[in-house]
Amino acid sequence: MAQFKRIAVVGAGLIGGSILLAAARKGLAGSLTCWSRSENSRATLRTFGVAEVFADAAECVRGADLVIVTTPVDTAEETFLAISPGLSPGAIVTDAGSVKVAIQLAARRLPAANPFVGAHPMAGGEKAGAAHAAATLFEGRVCFVTPTGSEDPKAVEAVRGFWQALGSVLHETDAAKHDEIVAAISHVPHAAASALMLAVMDQPGFRRFAVGAGLRDTTRIAAGEENLWVGIMLANARHTAAGLRDLERRTAELRTAVEANDAETLRRLLAEARVARQNLDRAE
Amino acid sequence: MAQFKRIAVVGAGLIGGSILLAAARKGLAGSLTCWSRSENSRATLRTFGVAEVFADAAECVRGADLVIVTTPVDTAEETFLAISPGLSPGAIVTDAGSVKVAIQLAARRLPAANPFVGAHPMAGGEKAGAAHAAATLFEGRVCFVTPTGSEDPKAVEAVRGFWQALGSVLHETDAAKHDEIVAAISHVPHAAASALMLAVMDQPGFRRFAVGAGLRDTTRIAAGEENLWVGIMLANARHTAAGLRDLERRTAELRTAVEANDAETLRRLLAEARVARQNLDRAE
Repeated sequence: MAQFKRIAVVGAGLIGGSILLAAARKGLAGSLTCWSRSENSRATLRTFGVAEVFADAAECVRGADLVIVTTPVDTAEETFLAISPGLSPGAIVTDAGSVKVAIQLAARRLPAANPFVGAHPMAGGEKAGAAHAAATLFEGRVCFVTPTGSEDPKAVEAVRGFWQALGSVLHETDAAKHDEIVAAISHVPHAAASALMLAVMDQPGFRRFAVGAGLRDTTRIAAGEENLWVGIMLANARHTAAGLRDLERRTAELRTAVEANDAETLRRLLAEARVARQNLDRAE
Repeated sequence: MAQFKRIAVVGAGLIGGSILLAAARKGLAGSLTCWSRSENSRATLRTFGVAEVFADAAECVRGADLVIVTTPVDTAEETFLAISPGLSPGAIVTDAGSVKVAIQLAARRLPAANPFVGAHPMAGGEKAGAAHAAATLFEGRVCFVTPTGSEDPKAVEAVRGFWQALGSVLHETDAAKHDEIVAAISHVPHAAASALMLAVMDQPGFRRFAVGAGLRDTTRIAAGEENLWVGIMLANARHTAAGLRDLERRTAELRTAVEANDAETLRRLLAEARVARQNLDRAE
């Protein structure tokens, strides 16, 4: 039997679209609904043929027992206000945003009768939009679940069960810790890739013809959609800025060693980085 | 008919080993020889079964009409001195080093009867050593050829023909311009990947379990062998340091925008980086 009667996905880009495809394939709900602000995205969602597509967010969530908000993080509050009139009492709300403290604050706008349990599937990519959605997007990927501890345990259990059913590997932590972790492994690297791309363009020697896998890989995520990332970085500003400050310091250390012809320091720093990078590929 | 009577590869790691495999497969020489300082590498080279393996560099190049030096860039001068006693008069010498001005200077140590024409196949990787060699390593990859203009044109033609026969796409420029280009597209990105890896490790929120493709790709080249890269960065210090200084400045720009909650500046910078990155994937 399906886990939910009716699941509503509010804001259907890459993540929302993939949730619809995965939930349909796995039969997680009696029915699926979705909403997108853009007519273009709604047209894409209709081609999926798995969910009722709404142009009104409150209509979309009507009758749903699980609502997943997948709009950009800087529109979370607006989205919570928009769906509130349509929410059935007791309907559980979760999300997929890349920051959790700010969204947990925004979720206070939801009716008291609707428990919110934040989540963050680590499954984004530089290709945004429902057109790139895939039913397998969450398989084997980490999904943070960030309860406050004061929710109805049944709501937490339902949200856990939902993300697990999509194939995610759950990791439970609090919102503040989540934001610190993803700054280190996602938000700072994203900004770093952008900074490198800009710095490379600044070089008088930059020529596209000779670019190889090294620069391509190092800057790949800089191709991500800026509007999404402005929202994420500003909503996680403190940790992101701290990481970027450390990047400036580490870059200056390397640069100073190069300028001073200090082979020993340069070797030590590059060796530390090599070992750390190799450790990323080792099992936990 | 083979282009060369006898080709000697001096210093057989990833690049040298791949040259041997490719030259053998394509029948570029009547015979192949190679040299490595390490008994381990010599053992690997023997398993290839395509070349005579020498423990003495001068012996290795005896009778060769083409000699390719593939030792680390900071040992170029030492290698040129070591092979000089064995070089046949008129034997052409080329190399595969990631910097060209410093190696061109070191090549003055070669006998006057041996023309040197520098080259740099853009085909390295974070996996070093002959054990990772592949006959197809150079197929479709850019190879810089950096004549000074004062060499025997036949020597330049022979070196061009050799790298082309390995499948490389030739790009001819002078050594100074080469060093400026590869700083921008290779040496600065390498140092940047190392700096990011170190900065990520500095973050109190760093956790390996949640690391995804973004951080992995952005830091992949930081797994490169530090001894190779110390030599490269110090031999191209001016351009590398200039690029790193620009990286510090661009990182600070992003960080300042994040700290100031300046969405407009942040959006502009991320958009510039996105467009530049997308352009990398466009045809020239």
